[in-house]
Amino acid sequence: MARRIALAGIGKIARDQHIPSIAASDDWELAATVSRSGGIDGVENHKTLDALLAARPDIEVISLTMPPGPRFAAAKAALEAGRHVMLEKPPGASFAECGTLEREARERGVTLFASWHTRHAARVADARDWLAGKRLKRLAVTWCEDVRKWHPGQEWVWEPGGLGVFDTGINALSVVTEILQEDIHVTSSDLDIPENRQTPITARLAFHHPDGAEVTAYMTWRHDGGEVWDIEAETDDGTLLLSEGATILSIDGARVSDEGEDPGEYARLYAHLARLVDAGESDVDLAPFCHVVDALSLGRRRRVDAFVEEG
Amino acid sequence: MARRIALAGIGKIARDQHIPSIAASDDWELAATVSRSGGIDGVENHKTLDALLAARPDIEVISLTMPPGPRFAAAKAALEAGRHVMLEKPPGASFAECGTLEREARERGVTLFASWHTRHAARVADARDWLAGKRLKRLAVTWCEDVRKWHPGQEWVWEPGGLGVFDTGINALSVVTEILQEDIHVTSSDLDIPENRQTPITARLAFHHPDGAEVTAYMTWRHDGGEVWDIEAETDDGTLLLSEGATILSIDGARVSDEGEDPGEYARLYAHLARLVDAGESDVDLAPFCHVVDALSLGRRRRVDAFVEEG
Repeated sequence: MARRIALAGIGKIARDQHIPSIAASDDWELAATVSRSGGIDGVENHKTLDALLAARPDIEVISLTMPPGPRFAAAKAALEAGRHVMLEKPPGASFAECGTLEREARERGVTLFASWHTRHAARVADARDWLAGKRLKRLAVTWCEDVRKWHPGQEWVWEPGGLGVFDTGINALSVVTEILQEDIHVTSSDLDIPENRQTPITARLAFHHPDGAEVTAYMTWRHDGGEVWDIEAETDDGTLLLSEGATILSIDGARVSDEGEDPGEYARLYAHLARLVDAGESDVDLAPFCHVVDALSLGRRRRVDAFVEEG
Repeated sequence: MARRIALAGIGKIARDQHIPSIAASDDWELAATVSRSGGIDGVENHKTLDALLAARPDIEVISLTMPPGPRFAAAKAALEAGRHVMLEKPPGASFAECGTLEREARERGVTLFASWHTRHAARVADARDWLAGKRLKRLAVTWCEDVRKWHPGQEWVWEPGGLGVFDTGINALSVVTEILQEDIHVTSSDLDIPENRQTPITARLAFHHPDGAEVTAYMTWRHDGGEVWDIEAETDDGTLLLSEGATILSIDGARVSDEGEDPGEYARLYAHLARLVDAGESDVDLAPFCHVVDALSLGRRRRVDAFVEEG
């Protein structure tokens, strides 16, 4: 039987991904939404999360898709009301608040799922399996997109806490930390900050790897043309390439054949949420956010040309 | 019987604090040092930590006082050699590496002590006890000192990872997180960055507190005159002031009398290390570092006048 779920925050990501994935799933029934500006046709909507929590004690699971700024208060309220909670990425505006939510969920005995949608891309699990047991020599993330296409008019990405290019780069790091078994940490971070903005438009990172492998990431939002979302890993036994956001896997230059149709990241993400709730477990891996917070806090900042969206 | 300990990194903090505190303690015997530029009179010195670890398997505990940059590799090597480890503050250059060390210690079954010396100042425990059970309304950190006095010629504090004013401000946060029972997290951070430097000279922070108390911190290194190292906490049942780096406690304006002589922060810190090793426990509370990393990563940066040490 499908579990009832409510979706709080009906913006672009909810309409593009969450709502269709829930609709297509046998695990879930979208029982209500929370939106101040109006919900979606045919689904009960509440103006505030508190109103939803009061009116619908039967809805056990709340998925929170609003930006990280207001998300902490919503997550805290839902957990305190004894509901299971899924967080869109990144899991918070600060690293400390993620720990608070994790403790709250543990003490209440409910599920908290800090989700990383790109970690559920089609070929991530295959990449992890292929790398297991091989010795890594080099791993390079190349993550380039045009911010004007992906965040048109979204000023918040440039404000403190908005993460800048790490808003997309954290997706790459969620894959890297899934496919590598070893602990890594940022050792150097060079950040280009447009002179009229607070957050980086380009980042170049280097990581410590316990076996001395060279692990780097290049991320930029100042990019014309198509997206480059690649992760390449050279080992003692061949080279792996995850491309197009971990939806394509190649080994030594040859594409590994796909099997069947790809239901998509968010379908897998909601299937994972169903397993977690069934098992009474949480999944809160803060490693991708930790690396971003480290990169921002120990980064060397360089002022570069202003970023102006139009013209 | 005194346990043998080795001190790695013989700089100012080692000479001023660690060596006298170990010498005055019945718990410890300084059996060796590690210093490339020479150790101290009458104590066996090794040029490298690896040489010490190889030569002296009988030394169970290693205290690491070098700056956070090179400290990770040293801590990892000591833990891998099965030794107990104490880290000066801050516990790392990145937040992620602290988690790696914590896991390493747990897997090896040895003690890791991420120390916060100011947390062991004379009146911290009294302040914590006084606050327990009271309802906090307001807490304000005021932490002002002259960087030219405390870090003369130390360029590394201005480099990425050097923390800037948080190098001292983290001491205040180590006390705040000890005396408050509740989880807090940074919600806003305003940072003044000298135009010729990478790290803040002044920081103004605001924190979320679960009961809505107003929690703020003002920290600056651009300060003439004597140090101000104050933490004031207003509750529903009086106001507490910890001053002079938590060595003086006042309640409602009246100084609470001290009892006996103060052996000092580092004496208590090494006594705590002895208890941890005896009990086979670790003490790794990363909260102070987490708040600093959050403040640096979500901070709003403002360029201010260059900082020039001389003239």
